[in-house]
Amino acid sequence: MTEGRATGRRGGGGAARRAARGAAGVECARFIERNIPDFDLLNAEALEIIEQNAEIVLEEIGVTFAENPDALTRWREAGADVQGERVRLPRGLARTLCATAPARFTQHARNPARNVDIGGRSLVLAPVYGPPFVRDLDGGRRYGTIEDFRRFVRLGYMSKWLHHSGGTVCEPTDVPVAKRHLDMLLAHMTLTDKPFMGSVTEPSRARDSIEMCEILFGRDFVAGNTVMTSLININSPLTFDATMMGALEVYAATNQACIVSPFIVGGAMAPVSVAGTLTQVLAEVMAGVAYSQLVRPGAPVIFGAFVTSIDMNSGAPTFGTPEASQILYGAGQLARRLGLPFRSGGGLCGSKLPDAQSAYETTHTLNAALLGGVNFMLHACGWLEGGLVASYEKFVMDADQLGALHKLAAGVATDPEAQAMDALREVGPGGHFLGCAHTQANFRDAFWRSELLDYKPFETWDEEGARDTSMLAADRVRALLARYEAPAIDPGLKEALEEFVSRRKAELPDSAY
Amino acid sequence: MTEGRATGRRGGGGAARRAARGAAGVECARFIERNIPDFDLLNAEALEIIEQNAEIVLEEIGVTFAENPDALTRWREAGADVQGERVRLPRGLARTLCATAPARFTQHARNPARNVDIGGRSLVLAPVYGPPFVRDLDGGRRYGTIEDFRRFVRLGYMSKWLHHSGGTVCEPTDVPVAKRHLDMLLAHMTLTDKPFMGSVTEPSRARDSIEMCEILFGRDFVAGNTVMTSLININSPLTFDATMMGALEVYAATNQACIVSPFIVGGAMAPVSVAGTLTQVLAEVMAGVAYSQLVRPGAPVIFGAFVTSIDMNSGAPTFGTPEASQILYGAGQLARRLGLPFRSGGGLCGSKLPDAQSAYETTHTLNAALLGGVNFMLHACGWLEGGLVASYEKFVMDADQLGALHKLAAGVATDPEAQAMDALREVGPGGHFLGCAHTQANFRDAFWRSELLDYKPFETWDEEGARDTSMLAADRVRALLARYEAPAIDPGLKEALEEFVSRRKAELPDSAY
Repeated sequence: MTEGRATGRRGGGGAARRAARGAAGVECARFIERNIPDFDLLNAEALEIIEQNAEIVLEEIGVTFAENPDALTRWREAGADVQGERVRLPRGLARTLCATAPARFTQHARNPARNVDIGGRSLVLAPVYGPPFVRDLDGGRRYGTIEDFRRFVRLGYMSKWLHHSGGTVCEPTDVPVAKRHLDMLLAHMTLTDKPFMGSVTEPSRARDSIEMCEILFGRDFVAGNTVMTSLININSPLTFDATMMGALEVYAATNQACIVSPFIVGGAMAPVSVAGTLTQVLAEVMAGVAYSQLVRPGAPVIFGAFVTSIDMNSGAPTFGTPEASQILYGAGQLARRLGLPFRSGGGLCGSKLPDAQSAYETTHTLNAALLGGVNFMLHACGWLEGGLVASYEKFVMDADQLGALHKLAAGVATDPEAQAMDALREVGPGGHFLGCAHTQANFRDAFWRSELLDYKPFETWDEEGARDTSMLAADRVRALLARYEAPAIDPGLKEALEEFVSRRKAELPDSAY
Repeated sequence: MTEGRATGRRGGGGAARRAARGAAGVECARFIERNIPDFDLLNAEALEIIEQNAEIVLEEIGVTFAENPDALTRWREAGADVQGERVRLPRGLARTLCATAPARFTQHARNPARNVDIGGRSLVLAPVYGPPFVRDLDGGRRYGTIEDFRRFVRLGYMSKWLHHSGGTVCEPTDVPVAKRHLDMLLAHMTLTDKPFMGSVTEPSRARDSIEMCEILFGRDFVAGNTVMTSLININSPLTFDATMMGALEVYAATNQACIVSPFIVGGAMAPVSVAGTLTQVLAEVMAGVAYSQLVRPGAPVIFGAFVTSIDMNSGAPTFGTPEASQILYGAGQLARRLGLPFRSGGGLCGSKLPDAQSAYETTHTLNAALLGGVNFMLHACGWLEGGLVASYEKFVMDADQLGALHKLAAGVATDPEAQAMDALREVGPGGHFLGCAHTQANFRDAFWRSELLDYKPFETWDEEGARDTSMLAADRVRALLARYEAPAIDPGLKEALEEFVSRRKAELPDSAY
């Protein structure tokens, strides 16, 4: 079931469209199937140099699997040279092991209309992940709470162009660290019916995630299907820590998907060059994916790349830069040559406010991700201030822009109706197309339309308060949350989930990490 | 000289870098030579359909050359079927005539270090063109004046990533229409040393533009070289009016470059489909370029496309939409198949303020223009409110972003230094790259750095007033204008130009059109 080859296309007919609406008439677009080519920035020679160098890195420098004797045993048995915690992989070993990972898989949602395929020509959009702070126009910047978390999950459910509910949409800092994952999963399971991510901060929390999925989906279903995609960061350079690898082991063993993702601020955690950084990214991902296949051949896994550059004046990470785009394009090409699904960031920015800077930086990344062949876009909306802040306004601003990606990815129709020769003949030189038959028949779906941005005449806009984008967005946040109704769920299931959460919370300590 | 084939690469050495600095140490980047592939959105089949349909449009529907008996005579002699003002072109005629237009040409500036090549892999960046209003943070929105015009020309001169001074950077509405072109040209000729555009609003104003160039460059130089690139809009659909064609005739006859540019709000001036719009664009441009070659074979000309979509709810034009990007990519492919330089818009947006909306819309277009193979990008900075407003803050915001395009266009180096294998070996698993030898040797030029955006720690930014991008931009506008010094010009030349302007102003009426 993780291969997803038999899935085919859905969502084309009226029945599918009806199924895609929630109880409150909430629309959700099907994940994107690109009908456009990829942009191949690097030529074959450059890619081969990087691939050969990555093999040299794995063979001569190697990677560290820290505090993880089981991993070292697995590597030794697979034929690696293990010295202390350093694992050196003979040339070709990692690539050979990666070959058992599926090129595309289905992640199931509790509402089957919301299932997503990850890999091939697909693009699945998921919200921001990880910020300890939240920000909105009224309340400013403050630590995130579980109620903020729930509000973001609701916003994600109400966002038509968002296919995935994500994971840690913000840190619920008012809940003890050891218990947070339970409240977060409960929110993703009950407040939305879109697919979601599991906990990775401890192997036991990954096991809790699976147990809760077994309640939600049924034990047999989870045994045979992928129901979570979780984020496993590599401790770059070239280090795999025991916590993240412990979570990966739990997920891979149960056929749940992992994103194996170097987390790199270029110049600090990787060389200060694009080719050098791509070499390290490829070596790290190949080692991590190979390890997942040692745990369970065929386990679904995604080639991740979270790479940004550094401001060499201040040392601050920077986002939406040309180097970040170059690395994204290059990493996508390397992932496709490995036959793996590819993940990047989405609406990344360094700005403190949802202002022009945030949109410049975000849009560079969104364009690169669309054309660079990304299959799973994390942080597609809501990311602010280098990922320190989840912004309510930016969440709906970015989520609106994701509609434009859908339209661009659909490609250009050239059937006779799209050729519009009748319209050209009917109107002729000096005429007007607004009233012609072709326009009347096609105008409703012809152009993508923002549900947020201002298209009004100047005078109207001025009279209505001359509002900027963040003020329009604040209104939209209020309107979406006011309209929110939770998707239906079997009351028995909900009770069982809540019972599990209560029981585990009672067992777990109120620890701060 | 218009072929530009012998130009070769310049600007690589220290001498060229010194030559590229103005008297006040003002830096100007050389125009972009792309070292990256184009993004080909449409496949060959789609392009062939559009090309065949454009031939049908020209043959069966034809184009109108209004109030222009000379043009009709030229077309008749070239073998077209002329009925009244309607000109129908036998299949293949337009394409054959286009073949004499150069694939690449040099536009000369009075400072030879600022010359630009237009065509092939080049990308030349020019500022906003045409707004009647200006806006800044302090003064709000108001009609533009000649002093605003001069300030924008100064800002363009101070903008490192801007290669071209443009044309009507704003309308100087305090100068009578019949005299404006004289003051505008004088500003471009004396306040900057970058290349510029000529007047197109009347054939006599085109002749004034040439006469002023003859004073600035010398009569012999202008006879043998292209010193202006001017914007000739087509009155879409399929109509060529006498004013614009009169200006084109003057420029083509003297070997000055014209951008032949459909001006289309899709759904109103073209069919409500991408393929239909591209068909019309191609037919219009081929007819206009063919006409320029009837006037003078070999005259330099650019395949223009200013195409946007319409908001079908309000009828307002919209910018930065996915359909606009699709048309830009497709038009670029059609231009390359015709062997012509290609022009598009740059920082287009519909927003009333330099806010997030303006940056989302702008950045979509900037990315599409870079990857879509644009050779001449008009409106690369400063455009606001659908082109009604030239914004001071957005001018410097966009101009800063243009630096990112330079870096992305340079491609990815894979020489041994860029491969950084020594750095990877030196640092190893778990280490830090900041201090390693490779980073120390390369960090200065490794990453593009904005000169405007905020990269500061949150606390510093907050203490300094929590400024958004437009506030930072307002500071930069003030700083650039305060630092401005006019580039040196021969006092005799300047006097001769001023004398010409005075004389012509005395001759011309204070008319309002």
